[in-house]
Amino acid sequence: MAPVDNGAQTETKDQAITSTTAATDPYNVEAAEILASSAQHMPIAQAAPIYEQILSLFPTASKFWKQYAEAHMAVNNDDAIKQIFSRCLLNCLHVPLWRCYIRFIRKVNEKKGAEGQDEIRKAFDFMLGYVGADMASGPVWMEYITFLKSLPAQTAQEESIRMTAIRKTYQKAIITPTHHVEQLWREYEHFENSVSRQLAKGLISEYQPKYNSARAVYREQKKYVDEIDYNMLAVPPTGSFKEEQQWMAWKRFLMFEKGNPQRIDSASSNKRIIFTHEQCLMYLYHYPDVWYDYATWHAKSGSIDAAIKVFQRALKALPDSETLKYAYAELEESRGAIQPARKIYESLLGDGVSATALAHIQFIRFLRRNEGVEAARKYFLDARKSPDCSYHVFVAYALIAFCLDKDPKFAHSIFEAGLKRFMHEPVYILEYADFLSRLNDEKNIRALFERALSSLPPEESVEVWKRYIQFEQTYGDLASMLKVEQRRKEALSRTGEEGASALESSLQDIVSRYSFMDLWPCSSKDLDHLARQELLAKNISKKAEKSAVCNGPATLDKIPAVLASNSNVFGKVIYPDTSRSVIYDPRQKLGTHHFFFMRLEFHLAQQCLGSRLLLTHCQILLDWHPMYLMRC
Amino acid sequence: MAPVDNGAQTETKDQAITSTTAATDPYNVEAAEILASSAQHMPIAQAAPIYEQILSLFPTASKFWKQYAEAHMAVNNDDAIKQIFSRCLLNCLHVPLWRCYIRFIRKVNEKKGAEGQDEIRKAFDFMLGYVGADMASGPVWMEYITFLKSLPAQTAQEESIRMTAIRKTYQKAIITPTHHVEQLWREYEHFENSVSRQLAKGLISEYQPKYNSARAVYREQKKYVDEIDYNMLAVPPTGSFKEEQQWMAWKRFLMFEKGNPQRIDSASSNKRIIFTHEQCLMYLYHYPDVWYDYATWHAKSGSIDAAIKVFQRALKALPDSETLKYAYAELEESRGAIQPARKIYESLLGDGVSATALAHIQFIRFLRRNEGVEAARKYFLDARKSPDCSYHVFVAYALIAFCLDKDPKFAHSIFEAGLKRFMHEPVYILEYADFLSRLNDEKNIRALFERALSSLPPEESVEVWKRYIQFEQTYGDLASMLKVEQRRKEALSRTGEEGASALESSLQDIVSRYSFMDLWPCSSKDLDHLARQELLAKNISKKAEKSAVCNGPATLDKIPAVLASNSNVFGKVIYPDTSRSVIYDPRQKLGTHHFFFMRLEFHLAQQCLGSRLLLTHCQILLDWHPMYLMRC
Repeated sequence: MAPVDNGAQTETKDQAITSTTAATDPYNVEAAEILASSAQHMPIAQAAPIYEQILSLFPTASKFWKQYAEAHMAVNNDDAIKQIFSRCLLNCLHVPLWRCYIRFIRKVNEKKGAEGQDEIRKAFDFMLGYVGADMASGPVWMEYITFLKSLPAQTAQEESIRMTAIRKTYQKAIITPTHHVEQLWREYEHFENSVSRQLAKGLISEYQPKYNSARAVYREQKKYVDEIDYNMLAVPPTGSFKEEQQWMAWKRFLMFEKGNPQRIDSASSNKRIIFTHEQCLMYLYHYPDVWYDYATWHAKSGSIDAAIKVFQRALKALPDSETLKYAYAELEESRGAIQPARKIYESLLGDGVSATALAHIQFIRFLRRNEGVEAARKYFLDARKSPDCSYHVFVAYALIAFCLDKDPKFAHSIFEAGLKRFMHEPVYILEYADFLSRLNDEKNIRALFERALSSLPPEESVEVWKRYIQFEQTYGDLASMLKVEQRRKEALSRTGEEGASALESSLQDIVSRYSFMDLWPCSSKDLDHLARQELLAKNISKKAEKSAVCNGPATLDKIPAVLASNSNVFGKVIYPDTSRSVIYDPRQKLGTHHFFFMRLEFHLAQQCLGSRLLLTHCQILLDWHPMYLMRC
Repeated sequence: MAPVDNGAQTETKDQAITSTTAATDPYNVEAAEILASSAQHMPIAQAAPIYEQILSLFPTASKFWKQYAEAHMAVNNDDAIKQIFSRCLLNCLHVPLWRCYIRFIRKVNEKKGAEGQDEIRKAFDFMLGYVGADMASGPVWMEYITFLKSLPAQTAQEESIRMTAIRKTYQKAIITPTHHVEQLWREYEHFENSVSRQLAKGLISEYQPKYNSARAVYREQKKYVDEIDYNMLAVPPTGSFKEEQQWMAWKRFLMFEKGNPQRIDSASSNKRIIFTHEQCLMYLYHYPDVWYDYATWHAKSGSIDAAIKVFQRALKALPDSETLKYAYAELEESRGAIQPARKIYESLLGDGVSATALAHIQFIRFLRRNEGVEAARKYFLDARKSPDCSYHVFVAYALIAFCLDKDPKFAHSIFEAGLKRFMHEPVYILEYADFLSRLNDEKNIRALFERALSSLPPEESVEVWKRYIQFEQTYGDLASMLKVEQRRKEALSRTGEEGASALESSLQDIVSRYSFMDLWPCSSKDLDHLARQELLAKNISKKAEKSAVCNGPATLDKIPAVLASNSNVFGKVIYPDTSRSVIYDPRQKLGTHHFFFMRLEFHLAQQCLGSRLLLTHCQILLDWHPMYLMRC
């Protein structure tokens, strides 16, 4: 078979993969399964690149590794097989793959006499060290014991050594919760009795409780394991029910193992926990939380180095996960390894040109924490030159200058410098105003609002107007308060979002002006009612404007129809039981988030929810009292 | 019939009303209708107290007033009838009631010759001045004209005066949009032609366009009027569909009238608008917004005195409406009438002992605005002695001292004095911390959190812990940040709300620590995923804890069942199209309220919403980033 042919055929397969999956996501499980099964009927030279391709996407798919190894085994490519096993075994703690490995080792070493037997024994030990804790490892333990029993023993000493090896293996096997633990126990009893009835009695009564415990744990553990699909391919989370179910199954299993249900020594327990984590990662390879939990568990168990290795593997699996990088950097930083931490931060910054604003900010914070005021300042002064440096970086650094460096003047100058670039960013204006209000700098706050509102288009100035009004409610007199409210109405009426009628002052404005924190000048029922009215009024004014334009009976005719169609919705609405609501209760002791959240929860508890009502409440809370949200 | 009997019978009726409605609300429309119809068959002496009772609840129910008057008319109690009309006419601008009045006046004056005729003419003028703009007033105009025509005219001069009176009345009637405007026009044409064909031509061509306009407006107006139920009794809003429909119908009608569709002079237009407002108040008598809009319209039209009279009537109708009192006080204050405004504030405070916290706060603000620093301070120092003075008053006054009086030391001492009383109020702690963070007083903020957390029970300290963590994220180093987070977890794990597993740090914590404003170290998809996981994990740990207690197979058996039942829910969930979501987009230019609101709106747009998803998002936003909410 010429290599040229090979190449050509592979390319066709490549195209097949591409055409099946390119349009959607590369992790197309179905396509991979089809490809793998088609590879089974090809000569190995043709199949190998296909396996490589599949395995580059699914590096923890033990079934494909096994199939790949078996394809080579069919033609006795021993070197290739060894290569494959060296690449996959330690990342794929799955019994069938490892049994395939043992088959290979036995086949290779069968004819090599004592030396070969030693190799096989080592392979068994190696395997059981990695997957001996697997519930499916029973047959491996049995096979090992059978193998040990089959070993020749010429002298009495050799016989004694062999017996000891068999006994030790039995004693490990019967304290491992596997499907075959009962059978292994019966065999062990038989074994000891066949060796020495007298000795057996003592040993069996010594191991009986350990076996009992293993069997009890097995029965419990089986329920967790039964929930797990060991055939699943590792794909990035899509949020499917199957995936969530598997994620939960693994979480529960891990939690169970972490509880050390067998009450074994902590070293053995930790080994089991590591085994379960590693196995879990075969399937939840693309889940940053699983990697993170694993690393954290290592760190908490005192193995910082192991934790760091997990992070390094995690970043190979998920090189784009910023979250994992921050977590990794945090671990390094908190153990005092500032240089390694800095390297990770630098990797987040990339070449610096296309660094995200968040990466700049976190690096500045890191520098401020670990290298001091000057290092942070220097980095900021460089970073702000980048055209991609957003207002966030200015805000973050100004807050550092104010809160940490206690340098309000410099902080002020940063905000002022940023204003030249970010005058068009309402959020920046609000942050700047917030900062000035910490300085209690009334004059500059007012000036800032005026500057911003003279340049922002009305549709971008909604929040700025709101804050300006809140400001006047706190700092201004009645006339300035009313004047800004009126100006806001005039400015925003031009956006078309609010109708002409919105220009008029409404009772809602009064409620908003004369509220304070969670105190309202009316009952919660009144608030519900007013909010509902506001919503209805918006519809009226929209319609009225339309009819003012058309000014004909055609438009007016439509109103009753609209009402009629609404009536279906209205009929279904469940009104809240305001007596249970805590929002407006002045005695309530929770912060805003809770008060808002409880309200939402309460609404959601009513299952199929009339959306108009929730909207109403959101509006009442957000439109009327942004100030309160701001405060708490 | 002895008065004693009367009393006894009335009492029975009283009891009937009480037993029917006492348990629910006094404004029982059905009961009132039944009572009123039973009163019709009673002697007037028995019926009168019933009418009085009904009318004390429904003072604008013109149909009951009419019935009451008619009952007296049946027995010719002229004085009683006059009394009744004097009590109701001006508040009940309803044609049938007024026609009943005219009937009475005509009957009384019919036999009195010229003097009586004059009385009747005056009554017609009086009536048409009040309800002549009503669409149903056509027959009244006709009756008046017929009456005018029936007047004797001996001399040519008298005949001329009578003709002029008829012509003037016709000319008013035909420019009024009524159901009978066409008929009146035809009669008018006939009238003028019968007087003088030559003169008629000029007059008719002068009035034709005015009539045309009135007729066109009538056709348009009729659509609004047809939506209105003039038979409805005025009850406090309950939020029923019928009520909302009527409220909208009146709003639309008022908006139509305010647009002066007939393009008449503004005095006439204002008269119509006043008429419509007054009529509206017959039905929406208990709607503070209607009173407020009416008063505001007067104020804007330049009649502050009229506005104030409306507020006074409004407070008779709704004496408990704080909102209306603030609105009224605001009007007085903004026209410089400080003493009247002060009186309204004082009425809000009542005897001062049971005054609400909000009333104290608003009065302090009022004093600060109008009488200066000392007056406000003096009032606060008195008010805080009241046992009902809540922490809000301290917060409000401290903010005045800081923002307006520019006295941070005094503000600090107010917060500190309040702490002795309100150490158990998490919201107060948060406000105090907020204030200290404006002072950039790191040391005292930390001390405050420590003091508060050492005395607050864990279940009340959730928000304080959150704020403490935010504080350390801004002011602290990595170690202090992590330490407070860990302490929070330990403290809250004891509340039982979060499971033992919540003690472990999670990837969510990393996301929260390394976010800034709307920048996140992961994609919005990742955030959704993490939030979903957090929710699932909470369920796992709750179950795990239960099973740890029972530790038997019975509990474990249940897990698959739970999963199975959940699967129904999961199947229905609509996942958000995160590509349309703007929350996590660093380029987004909106403030928090918008970002939150848009998210909600987006979710709600999907109509029947899986509650778990919305909860998820609320949690992600509120649990993770209260700081962001706080900022913006």
